[in-house]
Amino acid sequence: MRNAETTNPKRDLASMPVDECWQLLAEHTVGRLAFCLEGSPHLLPITHGVDQRTVVFRTGPGSKLGAAAQAAEVVYEIDGFDDARGGWSVVVRGSAELVTDAAELERLYGLGLHPWAVDGQVDWVRITPREVTGRQMRR
Amino acid sequence: MRNAETTNPKRDLASMPVDECWQLLAEHTVGRLAFCLEGSPHLLPITHGVDQRTVVFRTGPGSKLGAAAQAAEVVYEIDGFDDARGGWSVVVRGSAELVTDAAELERLYGLGLHPWAVDGQVDWVRITPREVTGRQMRR
Repeated sequence: MRNAETTNPKRDLASMPVDECWQLLAEHTVGRLAFCLEGSPHLLPITHGVDQRTVVFRTGPGSKLGAAAQAAEVVYEIDGFDDARGGWSVVVRGSAELVTDAAELERLYGLGLHPWAVDGQVDWVRITPREVTGRQMRR
Repeated sequence: MRNAETTNPKRDLASMPVDECWQLLAEHTVGRLAFCLEGSPHLLPITHGVDQRTVVFRTGPGSKLGAAAQAAEVVYEIDGFDDARGGWSVVVRGSAELVTDAAELERLYGLGLHPWAVDGQVDWVRITPREVTGRQMRR
């Protein structure tokens, strides 16, 4: 049974240019954030915005999501399917930190970003990318 | 600016019964797997199947995805949007391990699961849940 590869045709995966990755990040608003706390993985769906080639999101203070800002490293992912690309995904790896600068916050509120679930006060978290990679099924 | 909550209405998040979570896992095939390796988070979109209230997926031996089977703990997530639930997500937390039993493998091949990208030989990995949680926007 291990070589039943006739049911598993080879899929071509092509990488996407980084500009296309940012275009997709700008066009979409829902993705998933992953980070490790004390060795355990955490994965949460969130809504994001794009601000000057960083990824930003809102969270409630003290929430599990807010804890991402304490993680040394986070990964953010969006994916989808369209006729041109087939299945595609974009993965942003970087560091997350709370945004505290007043001028920056004012600009971020201008993004009109609505989080999945925030009750009351919100914090803004910014992911500064170290690596942005995209892949698609169709070349 | 921090109290501009008029643009951020409270979202109601309701938990979903575990049976509904499994129904959604059975109805959908694309999700994202997160795990930690040496303290770093990894997040990959995959296609999954459901086998006896476990989540299964295929991967190439030696791949990054296959490394999930060495992680002590993994998180698997699916999400979507429909009229009844609004935005929803299901998160499965558990342990991953390679499936090696011949009878089990034969049953898994019967699922007809096509991975995003596997070239050549495949391994099957099973996530045995420790916790399954679902949430939805609308009550």
